[in-house]
Parts: sequence; C-alpha cells; structure tokens
Amino acid sequence: MTYCIGMSLDEGLVFVSDSRTNAGIDKIARFEKMRVFENAGDRVLVALSAGNLSVTQNALNLLEMRVREDPQAPSLWNVRSMYEAARLLGDAMREVRAHDEKYLREQNIDASASFILGGQIAGETPRLFLVYSEGNFIEALNDTPYFQIGEIKYGKPILDRMIHRQSRLAAGVKCALISFDATIRSNLSVGAPIDLLIYRTDSLRVETRQRLMEDDAYMNQVNREWDQGLHRLFEALPEHEW
Amino acid sequence: MTYCIGMSLDEGLVFVSDSRTNAGIDKIARFEKMRVFENAGDRVLVALSAGNLSVTQNALNLLEMRVREDPQAPSLWNVRSMYEAARLLGDAMREVRAHDEKYLREQNIDASASFILGGQIAGETPRLFLVYSEGNFIEALNDTPYFQIGEIKYGKPILDRMIHRQSRLAAGVKCALISFDATIRSNLSVGAPIDLLIYRTDSLRVETRQRLMEDDAYMNQVNREWDQGLHRLFEALPEHEW
Repeated sequence: MTYCIGMSLDEGLVFVSDSRTNAGIDKIARFEKMRVFENAGDRVLVALSAGNLSVTQNALNLLEMRVREDPQAPSLWNVRSMYEAARLLGDAMREVRAHDEKYLREQNIDASASFILGGQIAGETPRLFLVYSEGNFIEALNDTPYFQIGEIKYGKPILDRMIHRQSRLAAGVKCALISFDATIRSNLSVGAPIDLLIYRTDSLRVETRQRLMEDDAYMNQVNREWDQGLHRLFEALPEHEW
Repeated sequence: MTYCIGMSLDEGLVFVSDSRTNAGIDKIARFEKMRVFENAGDRVLVALSAGNLSVTQNALNLLEMRVREDPQAPSLWNVRSMYEAARLLGDAMREVRAHDEKYLREQNIDASASFILGGQIAGETPRLFLVYSEGNFIEALNDTPYFQIGEIKYGKPILDRMIHRQSRLAAGVKCALISFDATIRSNLSVGAPIDLLIYRTDSLRVETRQRLMEDDAYMNQVNREWDQGLHRLFEALPEHEW
C-alpha cells in the first residue's frame, strides 16, 4: 500500500510520499513513488503515484521513451501548461491499462492506479492535479488545498482540520508528517522512509528534496510531541458522569 | 454508510453507533443500528450492525421469529454464552445471504454486512465479538480493547492512541465521541444522532442508553475543546527551516 499527499499552498507546493510497496505483507519492498521532472528556470513537475506499480511506472516510462524517440513530441519536458501535462499522464495510464488490464483481470489483479501531479511551468502559477485511474483528472482549486492518494483515510482528519491555502510551507510539512504518523500507526503497509519535496512558488527549481529515514530527528520530534500533547489534551477534556 | 464502535474495558462495555443509512448521498434516512436484548439479572446483549441493511435487519428478524415460534430453540434469549450468541448471529446472517445474495449480485448490490456483538450472560464475564460478513467471528481479547465496523479508518488513529483495557468507561465514551467527530468531518454519510449504550461489568442490566442529538451539550463541548486544543497543539509544535 501507499500513502501520498500533495498540497497547494500560497507559498508553494508540498509533496510527501512513502516508499513502501507490497504485494502481501510478507513481500515488502521499496520503490520510490515520487518522480521529479526539473528543468531549472523553466519547469518543475512532480508525480506521486499509488496503485498498481506496473501501471504507474510504465505510464511514466512510456512518456520518457516517447521523448527520447522524438524530442519534439508533446512531453512533460515541453508542454506549456500543467493542464497538458496532466492530460499526457492520464492518456499514458490509459494506454498502459489498455495493454495490460485484460491479463491482470484474469488473475484478479487490480490494475487501478492514480497520480498526484503538481508543479509549475514558466508562465503559469503552480498547479496541482489528481489523475484518476480512468485517466481523467481534477485540479486543486481554492477550496481544495490538498490531494491524497493510496491509504488516505487514517490521515485525512488532521489535514481537514489544519490545512488551508494560507498555511505556511513549514506548517504544511508538519501537518503532512502527523498525517503520515497516524497512517503508519494504523496500517502496517505504509512506512518510512518518507520522501519530501518542497517547491517554492516561482522558484522554478527544486530547492528542498529529502528522504526522511525512520530515525529522522525532526520527524520524530514532531510525532513524539504530538502524541504527548494529544494525551495531555485528551486527559484534560471533561468526562461526563453517565 | 455507518460507523459503529464497541469497546471492551475492565469497567464494562461501550457501544456507539450512528443512525444514518443511505443508498447514495441524496437518499439519506435513519435506522437504528443498535439492537439491545436485555433480560435484567440474566443477560444484556447489544448488536451493532453495518453493511447491507436488509441483511443485518433480517438476520436479527430471523432470530426473533425463531424464538416466537419455539421458545425452547437456541436464541439470544437462552444461550448460556456469548460465544453461542455470536455463532447464532453469524449463522443467521449466512442464512439471509444464502437466500438473497444471488438476486443482489445480479444488480451489483453489495450483500456484505457485519456485526459487533457484545454483552454479558450470567455466569460469564462481559465479552465482545466481531461477526464478519461470512458469518465467522473473532473475540476482543486483551490486546484488542475495541472493534469498529463500517467507515472505520478516519476514526481509528485516536482509538489506537488512547484506548486500553484499563481505560475508564467515561474515557472510552469521550474517545468514541472524538472518533465519531473525526469520521463525521471527513465523511458526509456518517452523522448524528449517535446512539450510546454503556454497560457496567456484572450489572446484568442496561443503566445508560442515550441518543445524542446533534446539539448534545457534552458531545459539542468535547468536540469543540478537542478541536481548539488540537489547533493550539499544532501551532506549538516546532517548525523546521527547510
């Protein structure tokens, strides 16, 4: 299983993904679920993926193969809008599924998959999209400061409570780490290391990209203080005499 | 959708269920998901249900019909252990599904359903079971102070953090209300009123059963103070300079 968050804030974009994939709990492996397309000064695109790994990897492979074969063909490296980028990615996923799904279905293997695609292309503001399994997609507009994919429910309440467009990038990261902690505690199949990318509006380059290992000091501090604070808060809440 | 929690604590059992059912967001109706079988001094059994309403209602109807036809037949009113009660309920669900599932499948209607069944029968300690859609069941033993059914993920992290066997009943209720609030915020299809039943170990009667309406003073106080406390706590957590 997977858990990924993409946030679209006034200050910029935050991308967080776990790096665990598994086909059954006994067969846990790590694959990076964050793919970055950076051409400094022109564009930064970040794709987070969840679902069937062969579908998401091959959708991206298809896009990369095409651009090697014909550098002029529409690709994530030359489209002039994030909208076109999301459409390319959705179309590539449809192509992979059309090629593979029949065979997967025969084995009762779920071919569904999804992407969060965000970033900025020179001439546009930063944009964030959710590309569904069927290849259609939606954009995060003002009411929607974030998208999640994968194992989304455990970590959703804290995002709903805390994150809005005006949240600072540092607060967005802090909230994402708490959301991941809630998910990891409740679901064995999501786990560290956690990949983090912070994109500052109009920078058109990746300044912060880190892999947070299980022993990351800041992540552990946030999770520990949050847990201790929750216990204090819970104790202090009034109890009813039933 | 539905959300129900059953807790098994040293002091007793806590049962909480929402009362909304829906087939699509536009068709919201209320049905009580908590059914109580009380014979004071001898037994208290509480069944919480989730999933296909025709399956859960008719499994219970079947059990009630049988006891009217033959008061000596094994029923929730005369079995001598909670284990037998759970088996009766699982078998009744299998019978309903065997009768209906073929027709539901033809319409792509999900016939799955589940129960939390808890209570105490004189001569036993209080026990709590989760009866799966297939009619098999498990019991909450020491490591497992609670079961959830229905829309379980949003409200699971807070239970995992706060609830253990030694938790007081009042703390269990408080935690259940917070868990419900997280679920209701994130999922339109779960909603108040919320049915609450508190069973004290060895009382063999129902002393506390309440329907908490949307404007319930205690529930609103807990939710408001929790939300305010979370915001203060979140603000106070350190932010990293990325």
